[in-house]
Amino acid sequence: MSAIDDLAGELAKLPGIGRKTALRLTYHLLRQPVEQSRRLADSLLTLRERVRPCARCFNLTEGELCEICRDPRRDQMVVCAVEEASDIGAIERAGEYRGLYHVLGGRLSPLDGIGPEDLTITRLLERVGEGGVREVILATNPSLEGEATALYVQRQLASTGIRVSRIARGLPVGGDLEYADGVTIAQAIAARREM
Amino acid sequence: MSAIDDLAGELAKLPGIGRKTALRLTYHLLRQPVEQSRRLADSLLTLRERVRPCARCFNLTEGELCEICRDPRRDQMVVCAVEEASDIGAIERAGEYRGLYHVLGGRLSPLDGIGPEDLTITRLLERVGEGGVREVILATNPSLEGEATALYVQRQLASTGIRVSRIARGLPVGGDLEYADGVTIAQAIAARREM
Repeated sequence: MSAIDDLAGELAKLPGIGRKTALRLTYHLLRQPVEQSRRLADSLLTLRERVRPCARCFNLTEGELCEICRDPRRDQMVVCAVEEASDIGAIERAGEYRGLYHVLGGRLSPLDGIGPEDLTITRLLERVGEGGVREVILATNPSLEGEATALYVQRQLASTGIRVSRIARGLPVGGDLEYADGVTIAQAIAARREM
Repeated sequence: MSAIDDLAGELAKLPGIGRKTALRLTYHLLRQPVEQSRRLADSLLTLRERVRPCARCFNLTEGELCEICRDPRRDQMVVCAVEEASDIGAIERAGEYRGLYHVLGGRLSPLDGIGPEDLTITRLLERVGEGGVREVILATNPSLEGEATALYVQRQLASTGIRVSRIARGLPVGGDLEYADGVTIAQAIAARREM
């Protein structure tokens, strides 16, 4: 196997990168200064050496606790549970939320063999059990599996007596009613608020 | 700068990969076994160590001459000039062409400061001068700059007396007249053949 096919094969393993794109990227790198390939290789190796899950919330970090858990200005009484660490970035960019997070590490998916024991749900229950948490916001994706996961976690938390909420579903801001799917419209109408 | 931002930054330098996609790929790699990142890094380093231009045609190779130049079954009398080594793959996949190649290394582009001396045109003239070549097919892209490059090379070869041809332009097979641009349709009509 040639070095070109080899790199193209590795690149094609990445999501959203097909065989053709992988070859195009490989040829692109061959036209760039060799330093660019070296820096990319270095970054790949450094990433996996340095980055690990936060000991408290499973967000990705280069330290023991992540930036958000270390920040004393964050509201320690609210925990927002998300599927993946990458979801935290999306919520942080929105700039509204000031509480903490909990990365579940995926969603319940019986078909893929992913059960509650594969997620960090037990650790979330322990965090709540340690006290100081008043509300858990369930921000799993508005998909079938995300909803099932939220429902499962909500049931686990029910006995603790803390507030458990679910992020709202509805029409995206700037979205167009004409192009929205029926389920979204139905949920937007069901969740309507008085003006 | 964090290791995550660092890798995302390097990935975002690749063509067609924006900042958001780069972050998505980085998080994806963090969820995969560490071996996947290592193999990708290895392939990147190996690529630039092993691959170099063919001494004859500037196709990419891990040896002195590329696979095509080394293949005695290829027609040594026809040379197809392309802009980039990646164009060879596209022509080879079509499976019709049995001659040799010559990678020009780009196209003439005065605005980008790319003149004839930046391409391998002199080497192509030397190859033709060494004898044995009966035809040069100019397969630069059907863009403004590709056409200008083809015209320039054709003029350089004019005095040698060998046959110089240009790949045909027209409607792509499976394409739809309704969606084709006007220039393509005009060229398809101008290059029409009797049935």
